[in-house]
Amino acid sequence: MDALQAILTRRSTRRYDQRIPAKDIIDKVVEAGRHAPSGHNNQSTHFIVITDPKVLDRLVDLVTEAFSAMEASPDMYVSMRNSIERAKKGEYVFHYGAPVLVVVANRIGYGNAMADSACAIENMMIAANALDLGSCWINQLHWLTDNSRIRTFLQEIGLGEDETITGSMALGYSTDGLPTRTPLERKGNPVTVVSS
Amino acid sequence: MDALQAILTRRSTRRYDQRIPAKDIIDKVVEAGRHAPSGHNNQSTHFIVITDPKVLDRLVDLVTEAFSAMEASPDMYVSMRNSIERAKKGEYVFHYGAPVLVVVANRIGYGNAMADSACAIENMMIAANALDLGSCWINQLHWLTDNSRIRTFLQEIGLGEDETITGSMALGYSTDGLPTRTPLERKGNPVTVVSS
Repeated sequence: MDALQAILTRRSTRRYDQRIPAKDIIDKVVEAGRHAPSGHNNQSTHFIVITDPKVLDRLVDLVTEAFSAMEASPDMYVSMRNSIERAKKGEYVFHYGAPVLVVVANRIGYGNAMADSACAIENMMIAANALDLGSCWINQLHWLTDNSRIRTFLQEIGLGEDETITGSMALGYSTDGLPTRTPLERKGNPVTVVSS
Repeated sequence: MDALQAILTRRSTRRYDQRIPAKDIIDKVVEAGRHAPSGHNNQSTHFIVITDPKVLDRLVDLVTEAFSAMEASPDMYVSMRNSIERAKKGEYVFHYGAPVLVVVANRIGYGNAMADSACAIENMMIAANALDLGSCWINQLHWLTDNSRIRTFLQEIGLGEDETITGSMALGYSTDGLPTRTPLERKGNPVTVVSS
């Protein structure tokens, strides 16, 4: 797919079927992430690619448990408040049931950790779209990176002790079929031009 | 250009000629940035597109002045130390003399400000590569977002009082000709696979 088309038509997918994409397709998506730029080219972004359903189920339980123990408040970021409210109702699946979750981590204390990781996740989402896969940024594990039970579990599957979770990405085939190829209008994201 | 090729072959360009790209080309790059995802789709990323040479020269002076007043230390992030050392020598052009600088800002206190902005900058860098332009992430204005002289000047050209500078991007034609179309190997950015 054309690069500009892939960028303009990427959308967040929140309904997935359970087919795990072929390994070479997942590899292409992750390679796109690995080719993002990094501060001073230090390449410390770590990709933990989870396709094991038991591991994903365990993460859903841990995330639900963590949010259930928190209290929602009106001044809270709306997505976090929604997470807490849904978790308390026992109906919360933070990664929308995607068959693949790529957890992205970076070094604790590294000033460009979020910037580098976000570039990598964006690359993966564009690559996914170009390969007819759906994807969605998932912020919950970033918010919960200091939750001891979640940290312990993620360290068991490969997170480094010196790493913080900067984000994650759901990946898989949308139950709605192929992605729509019409760019979604942007009403925000203003542009100011300063020319001579 | 193919989306995956554009992602894999994007590189940081640090030498620019002085031709300002055509307006419709710059617009395509910025539109790519505007189509990045944002937390809860709030679309608060602000793009300040500077092509006025006098404004760019003034920014170079202000950034050089700011770094010249700082002291480098061995434990400092290497890129920041380099900025200070070069500024003190009076030979510092923080945006590599690119004819276009896109300053990216977002709301102060918004938790996804850096993530959203980085996705937008990455989109713009991939679009630039697909359009045969060079680009480079420029971090200096983010580091100096609380410098009062730089803030005042940027507010004069469109930065909101409620906004923080999250990053910026140099854009233009490389003096080295068309971008190389060979992906650069990644030795870092490790991948951990967790499958059943």
